[in-house]
Amino acid sequence: MIREFSRRQFLNAIGSAGGSAAVYQSALALGLLSTSHNVRASLKPVPEASKKVILLGAGLASLTSAYELERAGYECTILEASHRIGGRSLTIRGGDTVDELGYPQKCDFDKNKDLFFNAGPSRIPIHHHHLMHYLRTFQIPLEVFTNNNRNAWVHDTKAFGGKRMRIKQYTADARGFMAELSSKSLNRNDFDRPFTDNDFERFQAFLKSYGDLDENALYKGSSRAGYQSGGMITPAIKKTPIDFREILNSSFWEHRMHWAQSEDQSAPMLTATGGMDTIIDGFVDNIDSKILLNAQVQNVQLHEHSVSVSYRHEGQLKQVSGDYCFNSIPKHIMSGIPNNFPRDYQTALSSIPRGLLFKMGIQMNKRFWEDEDIYGGFSWSDQDIEQLWYPPHGLFSKKGIMIVYMFNDEATYRFGLLNPQQRLEKALHEAEAIHPDIRKYVDSAVSVPWHRMNHTMGCTAKWTPELRDQWFKRLQEPVGRHYMIGDQISYHPGWQEGAFGSAHFALSHLNARQHNEITTHVNAINHGQGA
Amino acid sequence: MIREFSRRQFLNAIGSAGGSAAVYQSALALGLLSTSHNVRASLKPVPEASKKVILLGAGLASLTSAYELERAGYECTILEASHRIGGRSLTIRGGDTVDELGYPQKCDFDKNKDLFFNAGPSRIPIHHHHLMHYLRTFQIPLEVFTNNNRNAWVHDTKAFGGKRMRIKQYTADARGFMAELSSKSLNRNDFDRPFTDNDFERFQAFLKSYGDLDENALYKGSSRAGYQSGGMITPAIKKTPIDFREILNSSFWEHRMHWAQSEDQSAPMLTATGGMDTIIDGFVDNIDSKILLNAQVQNVQLHEHSVSVSYRHEGQLKQVSGDYCFNSIPKHIMSGIPNNFPRDYQTALSSIPRGLLFKMGIQMNKRFWEDEDIYGGFSWSDQDIEQLWYPPHGLFSKKGIMIVYMFNDEATYRFGLLNPQQRLEKALHEAEAIHPDIRKYVDSAVSVPWHRMNHTMGCTAKWTPELRDQWFKRLQEPVGRHYMIGDQISYHPGWQEGAFGSAHFALSHLNARQHNEITTHVNAINHGQGA
Repeated sequence: MIREFSRRQFLNAIGSAGGSAAVYQSALALGLLSTSHNVRASLKPVPEASKKVILLGAGLASLTSAYELERAGYECTILEASHRIGGRSLTIRGGDTVDELGYPQKCDFDKNKDLFFNAGPSRIPIHHHHLMHYLRTFQIPLEVFTNNNRNAWVHDTKAFGGKRMRIKQYTADARGFMAELSSKSLNRNDFDRPFTDNDFERFQAFLKSYGDLDENALYKGSSRAGYQSGGMITPAIKKTPIDFREILNSSFWEHRMHWAQSEDQSAPMLTATGGMDTIIDGFVDNIDSKILLNAQVQNVQLHEHSVSVSYRHEGQLKQVSGDYCFNSIPKHIMSGIPNNFPRDYQTALSSIPRGLLFKMGIQMNKRFWEDEDIYGGFSWSDQDIEQLWYPPHGLFSKKGIMIVYMFNDEATYRFGLLNPQQRLEKALHEAEAIHPDIRKYVDSAVSVPWHRMNHTMGCTAKWTPELRDQWFKRLQEPVGRHYMIGDQISYHPGWQEGAFGSAHFALSHLNARQHNEITTHVNAINHGQGA
Repeated sequence: MIREFSRRQFLNAIGSAGGSAAVYQSALALGLLSTSHNVRASLKPVPEASKKVILLGAGLASLTSAYELERAGYECTILEASHRIGGRSLTIRGGDTVDELGYPQKCDFDKNKDLFFNAGPSRIPIHHHHLMHYLRTFQIPLEVFTNNNRNAWVHDTKAFGGKRMRIKQYTADARGFMAELSSKSLNRNDFDRPFTDNDFERFQAFLKSYGDLDENALYKGSSRAGYQSGGMITPAIKKTPIDFREILNSSFWEHRMHWAQSEDQSAPMLTATGGMDTIIDGFVDNIDSKILLNAQVQNVQLHEHSVSVSYRHEGQLKQVSGDYCFNSIPKHIMSGIPNNFPRDYQTALSSIPRGLLFKMGIQMNKRFWEDEDIYGGFSWSDQDIEQLWYPPHGLFSKKGIMIVYMFNDEATYRFGLLNPQQRLEKALHEAEAIHPDIRKYVDSAVSVPWHRMNHTMGCTAKWTPELRDQWFKRLQEPVGRHYMIGDQISYHPGWQEGAFGSAHFALSHLNARQHNEITTHVNAINHGQGA
């Protein structure tokens, strides 16, 4: 039960942990938030009063919120600072403008349905349930995304003489030698109870099978590495295993080798056919609310019964008021916009650093990688250009968009400092270690350093465990009638699912306070995830 | 240089290793066959004489041969025993007839582009170069095939209390415990030269990373197994690891766990959009030669300058003669058709056993697996129904075709003995261990035991190393003007690439003898496969 506050009570309340923290605490007590995989808001029709919501930002978190709010009878106004809808959900095509501060770019790709560059999210993990729900609702055409191409290349400047190697060869040999060495080291006496002799023998067999060892538990190469030759009309000849010490000296096993094992990168993954912006289109096509572009928020003021927002639009300062505000402005930007937030909330906003991220799309006039038996997925390098992506669609066609994708903060920062032409030059210079002839296939490129993109100025929120303890709940809870949303307010920053999750948390919370019912305000959906 | 034989010389020659064995030996001596990944025939225009080729069977080997022969000016006649083109390349749709001996079936699937059943080949390994060449030539629409779904289920009647488990959970825990136990057992003293202390430390780090171990090299669960809960708007909670002894007692690690590591099952794989018979259509659309269906070969006679074939068609016994014969009739069937082959060749034909294989397509009126976060790929069981496939296409639509796919000879034999209704009943009974409610979604099913299919009566040729030594070259070489072709005459039986390889070997051979040039008769194509 949410009680009404007097103005003084209200100000006191938002100065502390927030007037509606009780809702969150009760939901936790009910076990709904901590045990279910998914919390999707199930909004009741809005009461006659309190039905106007202002949404700041037109990324997925706001669009989802607007979509759900509209269906419950709320009136929504969406303000977006940039010239486009979608936030970091950005697919770039020929003719598009890339709004980087300092280096605005125009994309010169050919106009062709296959020649697009997902500069933001590009793949869909199956267990991202909110995302899958909306894809199903809007019937967005999907296809399988190749996130792990065992035929692509590993390149390590400090191993194998800098020579590229097929991922499958590296992996097969690494597994083989690991199993061989482990098998040699195993000693029955090391295996105390509860392990039995039978367990010990089974484990030896396990290692043989795991590494594809011979009858003496030695690794002598494996067809898993790909054949050296033959195998069709002549006998197959296995590749000679690489020296395990070379593998140990390389860096691929430190984390990249296990990429496809990780929770969010695990096969199968999906992508939206024709570009990930079809997901944004799905929302836009199903939302009636006004989305005002080029509207930059100047001030956010919390009041007892409303929130008012000033913004600049077409040279004019304007104002809009609502019963509630859903705010997906990046925290580090919001902390610099004048407001009357409680001090600790404002401190929280400014305390979470924002990550760097760099992606570059390069139109190639020939899909030269297909001549190397590569169809989709990516090669890895220990240079700044960490991943080189090959398009998984448009197979056998003439041209294709390659993507350079880097995560490393320092590398990303270095690339961000260069101008677009210098970035391309540096990327090609490094890529030549994998594809010596790459230069001759380049048509044009655009680069997207997210930490330099106008109105975004950063990619994912960088939560450390300490920052989580200190500030996460404070920002997840509303302050009065104002909710921060977006992937930044989730345990999945940098993923669309984080944006959906945060939006649905806020929607559930709003619904509960509007209807004074907290026991039914979250809808735990069990997707049969448990074993 | 092939010299012309007198009739007696001819008969003597085909009674020994074959008159043109020299060509094969020379090609081997040139190193072309044993070192290249690929041999694709490059046929010169046919001389005016000797241009008529009879092709027996209308599977991929014959179709490829006809396609290439036509382009060099040969005249081809194709005789096919069954009512359809494609051989084991069979995609079944609603209304189709399944020509099983004893149990002819009609397919009752709905007529819908997504509701098809690839009863033969269904996936395309990237390194199958001949296949990829023709897919590119005919511009067959392709899509990524999910061959390894880490979200699908492992089911083992003898482990985990018979309870299904996500493949990713099994795999993450198996890797974790393997690495932990190996790390514990490792002893610096076990590592002789050339391993250094640094190598030893790197290997310990390798194991930690491989198994996702904690700072003490212990496995305490991993997000790679999927979360127990949370991870979006609440903290992620890891799953409790399963007992490693349970894993050791299970059978999944014996080979199924490593499925996606193997040469031909490795990601990424492709499939033909809309059904694999689009590949057959690609050939048929590009071949002018007459393909006579329902034409069953009765006799094959080798002559000095020709081959003559008798066949039954529409109740009549007919005969056709050609300068050459390309024969893809399954060996075990061909050995029972009257002929004048040399005795050893005939013995070779009858010496290679034919494998069993069973597939069943079941139309489900709901894609219930999508509610379990499964999109494509397959679950595994240690029961007779080894693999349960989920369609990778038509995501979010209403219905879908599941496939039961079994390799085990005994299981396949057992299923083959049952009638179609009993097969469905047994498959569903076993599948209930994975999907308890599966029965309520069944619309209809068709089953294809390849060892009982009319005019085929078997799946892949079963070559043992001993049989290879004894008979492979004998059958790969022509006998006079008669070539055996098909995946049966390859090191890749059961794969389309084996059929292509055998056809191109025969084509190269024919080309060389026709033009008396063996030094140029094979075209080694280097696909950049080496590292």
